[in-house]
Amino acid sequence: MSTNNVESRVIKAPATVVWDALRKQDFKFWALVKSAQLSSSPSEVGATRTTTFTDGTVQKHRLVEFSEINRFLTYEIIDSDPAIHSLSAQHTIRVFPVSADDSSFVQWSSDFSSEGSLEAVMDSKYKKLEALADLAKAVEK
Amino acid sequence: MSTNNVESRVIKAPATVVWDALRKQDFKFWALVKSAQLSSSPSEVGATRTTTFTDGTVQKHRLVEFSEINRFLTYEIIDSDPAIHSLSAQHTIRVFPVSADDSSFVQWSSDFSSEGSLEAVMDSKYKKLEALADLAKAVEK
Amino acid sequence: MSTNNVESRVIKAPATVVWDALRKQDFKFWALVKSAQLSSSPSEVGATRTTTFTDGTVQKHRLVEFSEINRFLTYEIIDSDPAIHSLSAQHTIRVFPVSADDSSFVQWSSDFSSEGSLEAVMDSKYKKLEALADLAKAVEK
Amino acid sequence: MSTNNVESRVIKAPATVVWDALRKQDFKFWALVKSAQLSSSPSEVGATRTTTFTDGTVQKHRLVEFSEINRFLTYEIIDSDPAIHSLSAQHTIRVFPVSADDSSFVQWSSDFSSEGSLEAVMDSKYKKLEALADLAKAVEK
Repeated sequence: MSTNNVESRVIKAPATVVWDALRKQDFKFWALVKSAQLSSSPSEVGATRTTTFTDGTVQKHRLVEFSEINRFLTYEIIDSDPAIHSLSAQHTIRVFPVSADDSSFVQWSSDFSSEGSLEAVMDSKYKKLEALADLAKAVEK
Repeated sequence: MSTNNVESRVIKAPATVVWDALRKQDFKFWALVKSAQLSSSPSEVGATRTTTFTDGTVQKHRLVEFSEINRFLTYEIIDSDPAIHSLSAQHTIRVFPVSADDSSFVQWSSDFSSEGSLEAVMDSKYKKLEALADLAKAVEK
Repeated sequence: MSTNNVESRVIKAPATVVWDALRKQDFKFWALVKSAQLSSSPSEVGATRTTTFTDGTVQKHRLVEFSEINRFLTYEIIDSDPAIHSLSAQHTIRVFPVSADDSSFVQWSSDFSSEGSLEAVMDSKYKKLEALADLAKAVEK
Repeated sequence: MSTNNVESRVIKAPATVVWDALRKQDFKFWALVKSAQLSSSPSEVGATRTTTFTDGTVQKHRLVEFSEINRFLTYEIIDSDPAIHSLSAQHTIRVFPVSADDSSFVQWSSDFSSEGSLEAVMDSKYKKLEALADLAKAVEK
């Protein structure tokens, strides 16, 4: 078992469109997310986001890395109610353009502290795959 | 005009299969390549490869970077007959697994010395797109 | 001649201290900079900065990448008066901790559009080395 | 506790000299290493190396990544007698040139499987710092 998990998907929309849906971090495309509130500009590193999931979980995330040129953002989970089975987790979502047909390759990678349980990692794996499928639904025409 | 050109394509075959076709560097999948001869093991950094293209061009390439874990390789063109319109060029081909459907995202990036003419860069662009299409044909079922 | 130039220096201060001096982007440590005004928070990607140099040059920079966890920032020059001898330029400054003695390794890399003249690249090289020396003076004790 | 550990040091010798000492992978500079035998060329990815330490430990390493242009190499431990307290470990050593004074910054990073005990990680930390000090002694004049 690894404490790093990477999921990825091809999305049939240009990288600029996919990145636009991700960079604002309202996660409107994600069926599991009920709402997301940002403390300030979505591109301000250090900004926090309170995300409420449809199952009632409320998480506080902090943006720690943001790249407009390489189209990636990294956030860490700084609070979770109920607590997640991992002392800490860091997520990076990156969009790569697919030049041959102007679509996108999206990679979502998560690092868990070594206390991350297998259960937490598996849960994250399936949630990322679902989120990427939701993202595809939101931006593909 | 940039002196860096990146082309990419999704290939409907697992990353291990796509990487297997690339890592041996015989470029058998590439319609424009007539033959490729290696001076030693394909994974030995420093090895040279003599590539004969179907239009008669003969190029000597040297492997300068090779990663089995991240599935990429970099080679530089050290000789070309006839000469190419660029003092030097370096190519990196990288394979990323697409976890959602077990396919692959392949990225081919080239750096040209600043003397690289627009013509040389455009030529490289179309040749890479063709090569990636040939690779898809060779490994997709 | 390459259109990429990288300069670097070891600075005898912890990475957190060096990064603190850089992340606010007021460039107070840099003798060549007279003043720098930011349009918003220094960690907000997209923010612009107007930098006035002691020789009278005024440049407008835009932050395009910022990482709190990997301690790097990237900005591009979007306007310059007088114009610089390069259609465009992008600068990345990154701080690496040196664990053996709690000092820092700072790398400053610049990408110039291919129209960048040799003169512009050389000028940038010496200015970066000077700026790194100034940074050392400002944070070393 | 993290399952990743990075140690680094500045070495007062040019990057080409430091990389020369590392790339052959005989680890002659390292006081803790008695001997190292390679199965083939040191730059051949896939090559294995049998390293005998002065305390009697014998480890088998496999090269999985090698870059002549970016001066890094990655190997994984595929066998150890006695067994190490970690199911797996991967080490990357990278040399960065320090342009201001033509010295080098060397970064040694290790990834441990999540079963890596705190003890194993701490042991690795001190051994890396010692190895880097030994490397400095071997190449600095």
